[in-house]
Amino acid sequence: MKAAFLNNQGGDLIIKETDIPQPGPGEVLVKIAAAPVNPSDIAHIKEAQSGKDLNNFIPGLEGSGTVVATGKGLLPALLKGKRVACASKEGGAGTWAEYMVTTAANCFPLSKRVSDEQGSMSLVNPLTALAFIDIAREGKHKAITNNAAASALGRMLELLCRKERIPLINIVRRQEQVDMLKGQGSDHVLNRSEPSFTEELRSLASKLKATILFDSVCGPQFHDLAEALPSGSSVVIYGSLSPDEYVQFNPKKLLANDIHISGFYLGAQAKKNGLVKNLMKLRKVSRLMSSDMKINIHGRFPLERASEAIETYLAGMSAGKVLLIP
Amino acid sequence: MKAAFLNNQGGDLIIKETDIPQPGPGEVLVKIAAAPVNPSDIAHIKEAQSGKDLNNFIPGLEGSGTVVATGKGLLPALLKGKRVACASKEGGAGTWAEYMVTTAANCFPLSKRVSDEQGSMSLVNPLTALAFIDIAREGKHKAITNNAAASALGRMLELLCRKERIPLINIVRRQEQVDMLKGQGSDHVLNRSEPSFTEELRSLASKLKATILFDSVCGPQFHDLAEALPSGSSVVIYGSLSPDEYVQFNPKKLLANDIHISGFYLGAQAKKNGLVKNLMKLRKVSRLMSSDMKINIHGRFPLERASEAIETYLAGMSAGKVLLIP
Repeated sequence: MKAAFLNNQGGDLIIKETDIPQPGPGEVLVKIAAAPVNPSDIAHIKEAQSGKDLNNFIPGLEGSGTVVATGKGLLPALLKGKRVACASKEGGAGTWAEYMVTTAANCFPLSKRVSDEQGSMSLVNPLTALAFIDIAREGKHKAITNNAAASALGRMLELLCRKERIPLINIVRRQEQVDMLKGQGSDHVLNRSEPSFTEELRSLASKLKATILFDSVCGPQFHDLAEALPSGSSVVIYGSLSPDEYVQFNPKKLLANDIHISGFYLGAQAKKNGLVKNLMKLRKVSRLMSSDMKINIHGRFPLERASEAIETYLAGMSAGKVLLIP
Repeated sequence: MKAAFLNNQGGDLIIKETDIPQPGPGEVLVKIAAAPVNPSDIAHIKEAQSGKDLNNFIPGLEGSGTVVATGKGLLPALLKGKRVACASKEGGAGTWAEYMVTTAANCFPLSKRVSDEQGSMSLVNPLTALAFIDIAREGKHKAITNNAAASALGRMLELLCRKERIPLINIVRRQEQVDMLKGQGSDHVLNRSEPSFTEELRSLASKLKATILFDSVCGPQFHDLAEALPSGSSVVIYGSLSPDEYVQFNPKKLLANDIHISGFYLGAQAKKNGLVKNLMKLRKVSRLMSSDMKINIHGRFPLERASEAIETYLAGMSAGKVLLIP
């Protein structure tokens, strides 16, 4: 089979031929139909680039496909022949390949109403948005701020927040994104490229008691955002799309405003909540997926053009998702 | 009376004559005997320098003295004529004056064994060290790292950690501080000026499971320290002695290592725990103060030389405390 690999430390993605893997007990072999490029994939690849053993590293955290072979166990047997949304197993090879072995528990049958392409994006974004709602509720935050809100994840968070009646401040970086989100019914959209942005955020976050910020950008504006939040706020970093290696904050203001900074990684959250809770969440999401929303697809690429797919995604993340079609 | 004020926004400390204040209900008037310069005072002054109303701002969070007048209430009556350790009331004028009005609840009678000078440092440092132990226990941290450990607070934390059998990694910046702390029986002392420092910290913190760092420096080494901690660690900022306005961290490493950053401010902690718990803590501290430790005094200055006192303190914080003697 063909699969994406890293050709050397710090190096590029290349496509190589490799053996089709065999499922062990509790595992299934999925013939991949589609796999998106997620920010977490890019983070994962960057992490791998500094590692040692690149021979077995295939990127891709989620995808869709058909279960074509199964290892021992009841759950694998139930999935045989089914169309599924699937996530790679922890530390295992990913979805950017013609085939992937994963644990059966990481596969969820897709209903006929959901396409392979939409199904391939069933797990990472919706689970992340659901986790954000959970985190906000647990921390008793009355409203949420999200940066960069024009992403597919941002749009899903908006839908969930509306259902749950949690006010959401959407931060975007261009006027056309403001127009787009307002056109889709978002109540609160701020453009971080405007000179008045920080003051607008300060005033709106204070009014709505938006004491939690989810930030996937982490650029030079990080400290402006953090300092504009109400006292006692939490900043949850879930990505670092900005090319800057470091972000800054002012420790005196962190102290004075009692700001908390932490990171969110879906893998860790999923482990904490356990499988049963995740499955329940997925059911909730699958209803949402079929009824309310369709993620916009910006581009489709064969495996051979995986590097180009990443570039396309990074060049215009708010234009929609980029899919690999093995 | 004479008291320290700020002469303008961003400006210097000056000494002015002002009326002796009168205690209201529940309050007492303390004739100040001694008042230390604490890092929290410096933070407080910097904060005030950017504010508007400087006419009523007198610095000084703690001190000692004699209760010479009282407002209505049982507690004030009980304190009349007593030698006390005292803290300024929230938002009220401070101890860097000949007299201070504070709430009676912020005063603690001093035993004869404790001098005015030692008593003037009874509150901020010991309560902070006790709070650190509480925070470490609540977070189930097996061991603690403290930066800058040669301070009076650092030495008190060492004593408390020994009593509570919590391993403590002391970070200092000079070899003579390493020698001093080892001479005083510290098991773990690291010199952050050594090229091998980061690797030594990584290895020792991992071995001891030191998953919480208390940092009062916040300099350019901040991210090195944060990244050297075991996965899932907390960084608690309690000061920013470094002249740098901003500190940096790498968001990808924060995410990968699940690092949490927050601030500690004694006022907030005291409010959270309530007065009764604070009083119980103070009793614990007063035993510790009289039996185990004497804080080293590096210099004594009259009020008129308050600016010089701050400079002396900042120039050699590990040499000991600097006291104002009104």
